Amino acid sequence: MLDFNTIINNIHNNLKDNVVKGVVASYIPELSKQDVNQFGIYMQHMDGRSFMVGDAEVPFSIQSISKVLSLSKAIAFENNDIWKRVDVEPSGNPFNHLSLLELENGIPRNPLINAGAIVVADILCSKFENPKADFLQFVRDIANDQTIDYNYKVAESERKTGYNNYAAANLLKSFNNLNNNVEDVMDFYFHQCALEMTCSQLAKAFYLFANKGKCINNKQHISSSQAKRINAIMLTCGFYDESGEFAFEVGLPGKSGVGGGIVALLPNHFIISTWCPGLNVKGNSLIGMQALEQFTTQTNLSIF
Amino acid sequence: MLDFNTIINNIHNNLKDNVVKGVVASYIPELSKQDVNQFGIYMQHMDGRSFMVGDAEVPFSIQSISKVLSLSKAIAFENNDIWKRVDVEPSGNPFNHLSLLELENGIPRNPLINAGAIVVADILCSKFENPKADFLQFVRDIANDQTIDYNYKVAESERKTGYNNYAAANLLKSFNNLNNNVEDVMDFYFHQCALEMTCSQLAKAFYLFANKGKCINNKQHISSSQAKRINAIMLTCGFYDESGEFAFEVGLPGKSGVGGGIVALLPNHFIISTWCPGLNVKGNSLIGMQALEQFTTQTNLSIF
Amino acid sequence: MLDFNTIINNIHNNLKDNVVKGVVASYIPELSKQDVNQFGIYMQHMDGRSFMVGDAEVPFSIQSISKVLSLSKAIAFENNDIWKRVDVEPSGNPFNHLSLLELENGIPRNPLINAGAIVVADILCSKFENPKADFLQFVRDIANDQTIDYNYKVAESERKTGYNNYAAANLLKSFNNLNNNVEDVMDFYFHQCALEMTCSQLAKAFYLFANKGKCINNKQHISSSQAKRINAIMLTCGFYDESGEFAFEVGLPGKSGVGGGIVALLPNHFIISTWCPGLNVKGNSLIGMQALEQFTTQTNLSIF
Amino acid sequence: MLDFNTIINNIHNNLKDNVVKGVVASYIPELSKQDVNQFGIYMQHMDGRSFMVGDAEVPFSIQSISKVLSLSKAIAFENNDIWKRVDVEPSGNPFNHLSLLELENGIPRNPLINAGAIVVADILCSKFENPKADFLQFVRDIANDQTIDYNYKVAESERKTGYNNYAAANLLKSFNNLNNNVEDVMDFYFHQCALEMTCSQLAKAFYLFANKGKCINNKQHISSSQAKRINAIMLTCGFYDESGEFAFEVGLPGKSGVGGGIVALLPNHFIISTWCPGLNVKGNSLIGMQALEQFTTQTNLSIF
Repeated sequence: MLDFNTIINNIHNNLKDNVVKGVVASYIPELSKQDVNQFGIYMQHMDGRSFMVGDAEVPFSIQSISKVLSLSKAIAFENNDIWKRVDVEPSGNPFNHLSLLELENGIPRNPLINAGAIVVADILCSKFENPKADFLQFVRDIANDQTIDYNYKVAESERKTGYNNYAAANLLKSFNNLNNNVEDVMDFYFHQCALEMTCSQLAKAFYLFANKGKCINNKQHISSSQAKRINAIMLTCGFYDESGEFAFEVGLPGKSGVGGGIVALLPNHFIISTWCPGLNVKGNSLIGMQALEQFTTQTNLSIF
Repeated sequence: MLDFNTIINNIHNNLKDNVVKGVVASYIPELSKQDVNQFGIYMQHMDGRSFMVGDAEVPFSIQSISKVLSLSKAIAFENNDIWKRVDVEPSGNPFNHLSLLELENGIPRNPLINAGAIVVADILCSKFENPKADFLQFVRDIANDQTIDYNYKVAESERKTGYNNYAAANLLKSFNNLNNNVEDVMDFYFHQCALEMTCSQLAKAFYLFANKGKCINNKQHISSSQAKRINAIMLTCGFYDESGEFAFEVGLPGKSGVGGGIVALLPNHFIISTWCPGLNVKGNSLIGMQALEQFTTQTNLSIF
Repeated sequence: MLDFNTIINNIHNNLKDNVVKGVVASYIPELSKQDVNQFGIYMQHMDGRSFMVGDAEVPFSIQSISKVLSLSKAIAFENNDIWKRVDVEPSGNPFNHLSLLELENGIPRNPLINAGAIVVADILCSKFENPKADFLQFVRDIANDQTIDYNYKVAESERKTGYNNYAAANLLKSFNNLNNNVEDVMDFYFHQCALEMTCSQLAKAFYLFANKGKCINNKQHISSSQAKRINAIMLTCGFYDESGEFAFEVGLPGKSGVGGGIVALLPNHFIISTWCPGLNVKGNSLIGMQALEQFTTQTNLSIF
Repeated sequence: MLDFNTIINNIHNNLKDNVVKGVVASYIPELSKQDVNQFGIYMQHMDGRSFMVGDAEVPFSIQSISKVLSLSKAIAFENNDIWKRVDVEPSGNPFNHLSLLELENGIPRNPLINAGAIVVADILCSKFENPKADFLQFVRDIANDQTIDYNYKVAESERKTGYNNYAAANLLKSFNNLNNNVEDVMDFYFHQCALEMTCSQLAKAFYLFANKGKCINNKQHISSSQAKRINAIMLTCGFYDESGEFAFEVGLPGKSGVGGGIVALLPNHFIISTWCPGLNVKGNSLIGMQALEQFTTQTNLSIF
C-alpha cells in the first residue's frame, strides 16, 4: 500500500528549496504581494485518510479554480442548456483568446477560459437570487466549511484593472451571449475569482467530482454523469494552453489558478491540491506542476 | 471642359431607381429608420464651382466619416507622436478586428478602424478642454458652417448598444493604449460619430484635404504634408476591407460611413460626396460606390 | 457483471438502421466508394474475452488512426526527443490548420494533426531502413497478425490528390522541421494512412496502449509511461476539433479516421473499435461516435 | 522647374555612406552574395529626359517586382476574369500569409503577395505557348531592350529552397485555384522572379503604367483603365505589410523586391527606380525607401 504521507513529504522537501520558483502574478496588484516561498500540499483520499505538508492550511486566492465550482452550479441549474452558449473544446491558443471568441461568433471555446467563465457567471446571475451570497453558500456547502469567504480587496483590485475581462464581457454582449448587465456580471465574476481557500478546503470542495457528484458531506449536488463531464473538461481545458502538457505529464483532471493553486483528482480515489504562488510562463504554478508530476510518477496513479 | 453638372445629374438619374439599393444599417436603432430611397450628390470644385443633385442638402449621420476629421485634429495636436499609438497599415480583415488588435499588442492597424479611431478620440479627450464642444467647433470651422451639430439621440442610441466598441476600448486599456476613462472616451466617440451633416457640408469640410491643409475659408488647419498623409490613409484604409476595391475601381482617397455617406477627393481639383443609406455587404453605401465609380470612369479623373 | 455481448449487439441494432448516417469521405476517390451501411463493432477485453457484431472483420482504410501507431514507433525510437519537433497541445481549430503551423514557426500542435503526423513520418523515414516495409512489420507484430497490408490503390489515390498534405510538408520543410525529401516522406505517409485493417485487427493493435506498452502477444514495444502518454494525447487530440466533445461524451482515449473507423480504450480493461463509413461534419464516424457514447453510458465505464 | 539631376545626386550622396544599410536577403543563396554598398537611382521623365546616379546600370535580381509585369500580361490576356481567382485587397499581415489563404478558401488577397503571383503565373502558363520564353519576350518588348534575361542560377537556387512557395502552390491546388501542375507553375514563377534588370531597364519597363498602357516604344500593351488599376494595386499592396507606410511616406504607386530594387511612378510624369540590396525588417530596400521618401519630399511630387 502506498505511503502517501512519505511521498508528499518527500516531494515537498525536494521542491521547497528550488531556486527557480517562477514569478508571482503581478497584474492583480493584491496578488503580487504573495510570498513566493509559501508551498503547501494537501491530499484527501476517498477512504477517509488525508495528508498534508507545508502551507496547506494557509488561505490563498483561488482565482480560476473557482471556474469549476461556478460551472458545477450552472450545470446543476441548466443541465445541457448551458452548452448552447459555451463549447467544450480546448482553446489551445495562448495569444489571442478574444480572437477565437470573435471568430466563433461569441461562443466561448470552453467554460474554463475567461470568456466561457463569464458566460457561466451570467447564468448564475440569472439563476441565483443573491448571486454573490448564494454562490458563497454553495461553495461553503460542498466544502463543508462555513468559514470560506471572498477577499473583497482582491475583488476590488481586479475590478479596477480587469480591462481584458471587461473587453470579453462586452464582446459577448455584442454577440447577444450575455443576458445581464456587463457591470453586474463582472461584479459577480471578480468576487467568484477572489474566493480565498486553503489547500485543505479546496481538496474538500472538489470531493464531489471524484465522488460521482456527492460532496464530502454525502449530499448529491450534481449527477454522476455531470461530475464525469466536468472531469473531462478539466482534463482537456484546465490548464490554459498547457492542458495537453498536464494531461501528458500528470494524467489527472485538474484546474489551476494564477494565485498559484492547483487541484487535481483521480475519480473514486483521491483529490490532491497544491499551492505555491510562483507561476511558469503559461500561468500555472511552477512548483505545483512539478509536485503533481512527481506524485503521479511515484504513485503510478493516473487516469491513463 | 467637363460638364460636371450633366455628369452628376445623369449618374443620379441612372442610379436613383435601382431596385437593389442595399440594406440600411440596423445595428444602431436610430439609423435603421432611414429611407433607402434618399440619394444626394454634391461636388465642390476648387475653382469655386459647385454642383448638386437630389438630397444633397439633407442632413444624415456621418458616422465613420468623422474619423478623418478627428484624425486631422489629433495630427494637428500631436504631429507624428500619434503614430506611436496607432499604425498606418490597411487592416484588410473583415472578420476579426479585435483579433488583430490583440495579436498586435494593442496597436490598432490604422486610425480609420474603430479601435484606431478610439485611440484618436482618447488623444482628443486629453488635448481638448471640452472635448465634445471643442471638436464640434473644429468641424464647424473647417466646414465654414456654424449650424452643424451632433444628433444626440443617435449618440445615445450608439452608447446603449455599442458593446463591440466598449470591448475595443477595454482591450486598448488593457494594453495601456488608452489614457482616459473608457466611459469618457466612448462618450466623446459616440458623439463624434453622431455628427449630422449634409453632402454639401461634408464636401466643404473635406476641402482642406484637397487644398494642402487650408479650409474653404482659407485658414491653414493642418500642414500640406499632413493633408497628403491623411489622403494616403484614406486611400489605403478608408473603406474597411473594400479599400483595395475602391482604390481599384474609383481611384480616389475617400471615406465612407454606415449612415450611407461617402466623401472622396482629387487633390487640387475637387471634393465629391454622396449619400444613399442602403449598404452593401462590406458596409459601404451600395449606390454611393456605384455613383463614384461612374463619376471617375466618365470624367477620367483619378489619382492614378 | 456486464454482459458486453448483449450491450454491443443492442447498440448495433439500435443504430444500424439509422436514416442519418453521415457522408462518406469523398476527397480520397477510393474511399468514396465505401458502402455507408457497413457497420461493425469489436471489443477486446483484457481478461481475454472478445465480442463482435456486424462487419467487424471487414477490412477498411484506417487513415488517421495509423497516426497513433506511427507515433508509438517514433516514441520508441526517439523517446522524448520527438517533443522538440512537435507539441502535445490540442489544436482545437477546425478551419486553419496551416495557419497554426505558420504562427507557431513550424512546430505542429500535436502529433495527431496532419502536420504533426508528417513530422512523425519524417522521423520514421530517418530511423527505419525500409520505412514502408518496416512500419508494416511493426503493425503486424503489435496486432499479432501477418496478413495486414497497405491498400496501394488508396495510397496512390491520396498521393495524387493530397495537395493540402504536400502544402503542410513543404511548410514544415521551410521551417527546417523535415529532414527527408518531401516526396519520400509523403510516399511513406500516404501508405501509412492507407493501411487496411478490420475492427478486430485494430482492437488488437491498440492492445498495447491499454496494457502498459505490452502487445497482445505479451511483447513490450513501448514503456508503460510512454503508453500512458499516448493515451493522454489520444484523449486530448484524437478527434480533431471534436476531441473535447468526445472526452465529454464518451470519456475514453481514442482515435478516429476518415475511413469511418474509431478505436477507443479503457486502460487495464478493454479496447473497443467501430467502423461505419459515414462521417459527421467534423470528419468523425457519425454512427461510430454514437455507438461509443451509448457504450460508455450503458456500461458506466470511462476514465472519468 | 525642378532640377532632378541635382536632386537625385544629392540624395545619392546623402545616403550612400549610411552606416545602417539593412541586411541582404539570405534565404536565396545566390542573392546573399550581393554587395550591400551598391546603390543606384534612375529616373525616366515622360518629357523624354532621364537622370541616373551610381549603380543605375548594374543588373540585379528584380524578384517580386516581376509580379507587376506578369500581372499586366495576365490582365491583358484575361481582363477582369482574373479577379475571380485573386482579390485586390491589401493583405496587411506580416506573419501568416498562408493563414489568410486558408481562411479565405484559396483566394489570395491580391496579386502581389506570393500566393496571388502564383495564381497569375498559373494563368500565364495556360495562356503562353512557351511560358518562360514568351514572358521574357514580353518584358523585353515593354522595356524596349532585347538584352534582358533570366539569371538561371538564381532561378535554380530558388527552386531548391522555395519550400514556402511550394506550400502556397499546393494549398492553392487543394482549393482548385491552380490549373497547371505545381512543378510547371513553380518553374515559371522562379524564372520570372529571377529576371535580371538594371534600374534603367526597370524604369523603362514600367513606363507603360505611367503612360496609360503605352510602353516607351509607344505600343499599347494594356488599356488605359488597366494601367490605372495596376497603379492602384501597387499603391495599396506593393510593399508587403509596409504598403500603408509607403503610401503615407512616399505617396506613389510602386513595387519592391527582395533583391533590393524598388520602382515607383507618378502617372503622366515620371518613373523612378532605385537599387540598394540591404533590406529593412519588412523586406524592402532600406536605403531605397529613404531615397524615394527624400525624393517626394524635396520635389513635392506625389499622387496625394
